[in-house]
Formats: sequence, structure tokens, C-alpha cells
Amino acid sequence: MNILILGGGGFIGQKLARKLAETGTLRGKAIDRLVLADIAAPAPIDAPFPVETRTTDITDRASVDAVIDPQTDVIFHLAAVVSSHAEAEFDTGMAVNLTGVLNVLDRCRALPATPVLVFTSSLAVFGGEVPDPIEDWTIPNPQTSYGTQKAIGELLVNDYSRRGFVDGRGFRLPTIAVRPGKPNRAASSFMSSIIREPLNGVEAVCPVDPDFKHYYLSPRRCVENLIRGAEIAAEDLGMNRCMSMPGQTLSIRQMIDAMTAVAGPEPAKLIRWEEQPEIGAIVSGWRYDYNPAKALALGLIADDGFEENVRFYIKDDMPAA
Amino acid sequence: MNILILGGGGFIGQKLARKLAETGTLRGKAIDRLVLADIAAPAPIDAPFPVETRTTDITDRASVDAVIDPQTDVIFHLAAVVSSHAEAEFDTGMAVNLTGVLNVLDRCRALPATPVLVFTSSLAVFGGEVPDPIEDWTIPNPQTSYGTQKAIGELLVNDYSRRGFVDGRGFRLPTIAVRPGKPNRAASSFMSSIIREPLNGVEAVCPVDPDFKHYYLSPRRCVENLIRGAEIAAEDLGMNRCMSMPGQTLSIRQMIDAMTAVAGPEPAKLIRWEEQPEIGAIVSGWRYDYNPAKALALGLIADDGFEENVRFYIKDDMPAA
Repeated sequence: MNILILGGGGFIGQKLARKLAETGTLRGKAIDRLVLADIAAPAPIDAPFPVETRTTDITDRASVDAVIDPQTDVIFHLAAVVSSHAEAEFDTGMAVNLTGVLNVLDRCRALPATPVLVFTSSLAVFGGEVPDPIEDWTIPNPQTSYGTQKAIGELLVNDYSRRGFVDGRGFRLPTIAVRPGKPNRAASSFMSSIIREPLNGVEAVCPVDPDFKHYYLSPRRCVENLIRGAEIAAEDLGMNRCMSMPGQTLSIRQMIDAMTAVAGPEPAKLIRWEEQPEIGAIVSGWRYDYNPAKALALGLIADDGFEENVRFYIKDDMPAA
Repeated sequence: MNILILGGGGFIGQKLARKLAETGTLRGKAIDRLVLADIAAPAPIDAPFPVETRTTDITDRASVDAVIDPQTDVIFHLAAVVSSHAEAEFDTGMAVNLTGVLNVLDRCRALPATPVLVFTSSLAVFGGEVPDPIEDWTIPNPQTSYGTQKAIGELLVNDYSRRGFVDGRGFRLPTIAVRPGKPNRAASSFMSSIIREPLNGVEAVCPVDPDFKHYYLSPRRCVENLIRGAEIAAEDLGMNRCMSMPGQTLSIRQMIDAMTAVAGPEPAKLIRWEEQPEIGAIVSGWRYDYNPAKALALGLIADDGFEENVRFYIKDDMPAA
């Protein structure tokens, strides 16, 4: 079992690699080799099998051809230009999120055996004129270039799979919380920040009111779902191999209450409520009511209450005091 | 008003050109010039304004750049590799139906003014695991490469429009009947053939039973809808600029009864019923239950009973006896 993680330097890629190192198997077979590839060389990880790190530019077909070889059995394709970046730099987004996916798919098509491809899409494919809840059969009507490029990726993964060029499956990720690391300039940054910073004893700003609702999944469950996604038998995927990954709809108030239940009343006091209309304008357009029935039936799961998300952060990611 | 028809040599392109010649205006302005472009030089048409014919390869960006110029106000993009062709030749389909659309959109983006682009999609974008009726918010889950490429085109038209690169609008065409000309190798060929050939005094084979249902629109109403589509104000298009074009769901029996009502009992006697399981297997997977609510609200129309389709064929296309 030879595995490649495209985007292996990102935080989900690194967590996925560590999880694979811990289990040592995928699809019922021992892992022989793991390749972590990213635009900058990923950090190596400790594992009971060989781990290689590579610098790969997915916008360059030759670079993709070099990293996906005939021995590659499973590819996790996590590499992407994120939402705000794809919106600010249209051509970069098209190159990475569209041409990049085509390069990966066309390379798979050229191989003698058909690799499994786990494509990470995003719930950002949804928006616009669609009723709630968003079902597996709701049209992706994205209102960002990122969402558009991910929705196109889903269509391509389906068609290349239907034709037998690849054994693809795609999962639309919810917003990941609690995300480790530092706040960034993404409009969604506060959704992890208001939990992570207070747990670390640092003040955080909440730019929306406590009733603001959104759809979340912990990094730990996300990684487990990606692995489960790789293991689903092709014949169980049906006619649409792309689906929403389960998450939980939560208000800010529910998230903070969960933090208090796990860590006591002090962290919540470090949240400064400061309405930021420019953030509110963006995130209030985001959808939060999903019915990920297909993924649930295939064994993917959501967190069981946000207290889990808080505990996973403390256990998996919180810096030592 | 400068108009370009990409695919201007096809039967819809030619009918659209003749209709524009007849009305002489579009979007409330007199037509100054009409360019008909196709992979082979289109037949010229008579018009009260200058008509140019061009040979254009939409897979070649330079060829697209040459035919879309800064004076172009409205582009009708009808050029495509059809369903059976895109299924038989994957790379050709991707080049014409995906790269071709990107070439057109990127050329529009590079222009100083923003042209109107009328993109022809297809109800073939629908399929797979979606409930009936197919609504404006139903996911395109295409089961052909052609449908996949058209669904991608819709996403691109929406995003390029949202960003202000083009003023796009897309319409998913029903099966066009009664289509003029000769039978071809498309699985849907019989849907026009069983009406057209008998009206012309020629035998035709019906490969499915009389209860087989499908969704149809006449060429005449299709052309009228494309013109109406070009004239819709951008602000009325909402957050999804692509929509299903109205048609009628009809059984084969209803179609033949309509032919008999218009042309008497003789033509129906020229239909030979000969079940062809290989045709049945393809067309039985096609969807026929659509609710094109958005397009209807925007003034696009279906035929008023299949007798209209029969009359339009006799008036517009039937060869003189």
C-alpha cells in the first residue's frame, strides 16, 4: 500500500500522515510507503514505514507526473488555494484548484492501474438560491471562485471515475474547528480563535453575535472521515461519488458553553465581543443547515457535541503551558 | 448591436440567425452586424444588415480571440461536441466543451466592455441520484462526459459573471423535436425521426414502446427562448444564471396522436415498431420530469401541445413535396 498526500504539509495533511503512521494500514493492507508532497517541502513525520517528503507544484503536469507513480495506490488530494486567496487572485485559484485537479486526474488516467483518489471539496460549493436543508441532491451554486473550482473538481472526479480513469471519491469539508495554530485573515478565522486563544490564556475577539450559527467538524474526525472515505468500496459510492462530510450546526453560544463545560469559566472571560460588520457581511451569507445523509450511511461521522471538539484540541494540539 | 453566433453553422445557429435577420433588433437595438462562426464556414444568410461567416476553432485561443472583438455585444455560444461524440472521444469533448468555453470566457474577460454571453447547456447535466421533479436547485449529477462538461460550463459562466468578466446566462436545452434533416446515430434520433419521416412519406422505426416519456421543445421556441435569454436584464438573473429551458413531457403516443391530429391518419401508418434494447437501455435512464420555474418566470416558454411542434416542422422545415 503506497500512499500519497498532496498538500501533505498542511495541518490536515500532517494530521492524516500521523494517523496513518499510527494505524499502519489502509484498505486492509499494510502501508509500504507514504509520500508527503506540497508546494514547499512538508515536515517529515515518524512512522513504522518509509516516509518521503517532496516538493510538488500541482499546476505543473511534469511535477505531478513525477510524484504520482505506477506504484501509487491511494492519493489524498488536499492541495488547494483557499477561499480568500482564490477570491483575491483569480488566476492562481484557477491554476491550482482547476488545472491542478485536471493534472492529477490526467496523470491517474495515464497509469496502468487505477488509483483511489480522495478529493477534498468544501461546503463552500453551496450557496445562492437553494432551499434548506442542503441535501445530497442540492445544486452547488457557489458564490466564490473557490467554491466554483471545488464544484468543478467534483464533476471531474465523478466523470473520470465513471470512465474508469480513477477510483475517485470526494468529500465536502465543513469548517474545521478547533483549528490549531494562529489566527489568519480568513473570515472564518474567529470560529476557531474564540476557543483556541482563550484555552491558551489569550484574549480573542468575537466579531458576530452569540446566535450566529455555522457547521463544524473537528480536525480529528475530519482525518478519520478521510481515511474512511478512502476505504469505501467503489460499488457503494453510487452515481455521485462526491458528498457532504458530516458536521454539527452550532451557535457561538453553544461553542462557548461547551468550552466552559470542559475547561471551566475562565476562558470565556477572555472573549471580547466586538461586532465587525465586514466579517458579519461575509459569514452571514454562509449556509449552515446540511443533511449529509449519504456520508452518514457510508460510515462517516460528526463530532458528538462540541465538547468533543474542545477536548480534541486540548489533547491533540494545545501547546504545553 | 454586434452579434456573434459560435456554432453558427448548426441547425439552431442557422435558425437563430434567420430569426435575428427577420426581427432586425436585439436588446432594443438595431443589429449592425452578425458574425456566424463555426469549425467549417457556415452557410451565409440573407439579412438587412451585414452578415459575416468565419471559420473558428474554439479549442484554439488565438482563433477565439480573432472572432470575438471589442465591438462584440452579444455572443450566442452554441458550439459543442454532442453527447455521443464526447462519450466516444473523451479528449475531443474536453477540448471543445471545456477548454473551448474557457477560451471564450477568458477572451470576454480581456475585453474592455463586458459582452452578453448566452451559453447553451443541456438537460443532460441531470441524472443519477436526484428526486423528481428536477427543480432549479437540483444538483447536476451527469452520467455522461457531455453532461459533465456542460455542467462545468454552467459553473464557469456563473463565476465569470459574478466577477464581472462577462454578462453570462445559460439555458439547459430540452431534446429538440421535430428536428429537421436526416436521422443520425444519436440515441435520441428516433424522437424526431418518427414524426419527420412519416410526414415526409417515409417509413421510420420506433425503438421504444408508446409509453416512453421524454421532454421536448420545438426548434422555433428554442430560438425564441435563446433570444429572450439574451434580453433578460442581468439583475433579474439572480444568483444562478443557468437554468432549465422549458419544454413538455410527452409520451411517444401523445406525439403520434398530435401528428395524426395535424396531418391525418396516414403518417402514423409509416411507423414500424421495432424494439431496440440497446437504444432502450440508454434512453430509459434519461430524466423527463422537470420544473423550469425560473425560466418560465423570466418569460421563456414551452410549446403549447405537441401539435405546435408538428405544425412548426411542416411550416419551417418540411421539404417541398
